Amino acid sequence: MSQNTDSATACVLIIGDEILSGRTQDLNLQYIAKTLRRQGVLISVAHVIPDVEETIIEYVNETRNQHDYVLTTGGIGPTHDDITAKSIAAAFKVPLITNEVIAQRIRSYSTSTDTLNNRLRMAYVPQGAGLIENLTGGPHGFYINNVYAMAGIPRVLQSMLPTIQFRGGVVMHSGALEVFVGESWIAADLKQIQEENQVKVGSYPFRRKGKYCTTVVVRSHDKERILKALDRVKNAVQSRGETIGNVECDWLQE
Amino acid sequence: MSQNTDSATACVLIIGDEILSGRTQDLNLQYIAKTLRRQGVLISVAHVIPDVEETIIEYVNETRNQHDYVLTTGGIGPTHDDITAKSIAAAFKVPLITNEVIAQRIRSYSTSTDTLNNRLRMAYVPQGAGLIENLTGGPHGFYINNVYAMAGIPRVLQSMLPTIQFRGGVVMHSGALEVFVGESWIAADLKQIQEENQVKVGSYPFRRKGKYCTTVVVRSHDKERILKALDRVKNAVQSRGETIGNVECDWLQE
Repeated sequence: MSQNTDSATACVLIIGDEILSGRTQDLNLQYIAKTLRRQGVLISVAHVIPDVEETIIEYVNETRNQHDYVLTTGGIGPTHDDITAKSIAAAFKVPLITNEVIAQRIRSYSTSTDTLNNRLRMAYVPQGAGLIENLTGGPHGFYINNVYAMAGIPRVLQSMLPTIQFRGGVVMHSGALEVFVGESWIAADLKQIQEENQVKVGSYPFRRKGKYCTTVVVRSHDKERILKALDRVKNAVQSRGETIGNVECDWLQE
Repeated sequence: MSQNTDSATACVLIIGDEILSGRTQDLNLQYIAKTLRRQGVLISVAHVIPDVEETIIEYVNETRNQHDYVLTTGGIGPTHDDITAKSIAAAFKVPLITNEVIAQRIRSYSTSTDTLNNRLRMAYVPQGAGLIENLTGGPHGFYINNVYAMAGIPRVLQSMLPTIQFRGGVVMHSGALEVFVGESWIAADLKQIQEENQVKVGSYPFRRKGKYCTTVVVRSHDKERILKALDRVKNAVQSRGETIGNVECDWLQE
């Protein structure tokens, strides 16, 4: 399922009944995708799954052999429905143990005994797991082999993910050009440009002032190919008297 | 993977490289979940997959036997990367044909011959498919057996989905209560309340004025059980001198 053999691949498991029920809008997939892309890791597939232990075990075991990395979000808090650590331990057939580094961090915040005992649930990790730093000062995430377990709350996830250094491959780049014509107007050109330049060309419609417009996105490991393909798009539009917007390339924004 | 045997189940296939690359934020899953829930259909799982024909075929065929409904979003536009109809036809081993109702709607908008020919790609559906109305006046979506193919653009998806009447089961309800204590403070109570009331209890942390708070969500087919469980949560918090916010039940909002 890898889209390109030169990049490392990842699978994201979004764990949470609240996403499947529609109560919560997932915001983590996009953040993870953008963060990993800069390290040369592409997301091949993402699954949104419920808080059900057997389901989590099944997906962790199925995906960890198919991808360079598996990243999970959600289910590492202190309540009964936080079963990610337990489920990943079961997937790896290792015991769930208390990690003393996390436990110590939790104990450093004073609270009642009852609350502390519940919080200490967040110190459970699968035996053999390493820790993922949490820059908010809260409990850590963890990883075991190629499976990385992080929080579901976007603010906390964003305090964990940037601390991880993945071994990525060649970075997949993209360049985008807004053209002020509809997708159908330029469809034949795009197909041809994709084939001739050996790049991946996507088109995403939008409307501006009542007119159908298109964002053309070109993806490749090779920046030169992207620029060449975008130039071809530009010519195809301008040579027939239509107009374009600016070119935006990801490697110029970062 | 069904969470409850009394509701119908659905799987959502979000088809699109732009979601996996992080270029586009998916907004459809939450909308679909909320819309289906009101008809007694629960989403068991959702998969975000790339614009790759073999992958789409694989997922369509694997999921359509496991769920009452499969809903796809994305890939039904006029360009070369819009391969959903073709892939679903291949999954069902039927030819891709031009649907005259869609073709007629497309022809009703005047344009150049080239653009029209590209737009007519959107009239391709698998043989035997029925149509999903598109209230924007644009091309229709389609369904074949229990697989429903809709647009990826949220505005267009939202003009298609409400026109479909699913045969759902008993509606799963939810009630929510904000409590002004952290998750760990109330974790033991929630576990007990879930068990005693045979409901599903979820807890979702948020911060207000620097204080950790929790939204407690109770789900059940039985509204009385939800109200009883929420009452228990309320008592657990107030009897120890802490405060709560309002109760919100989905059946009172619609």
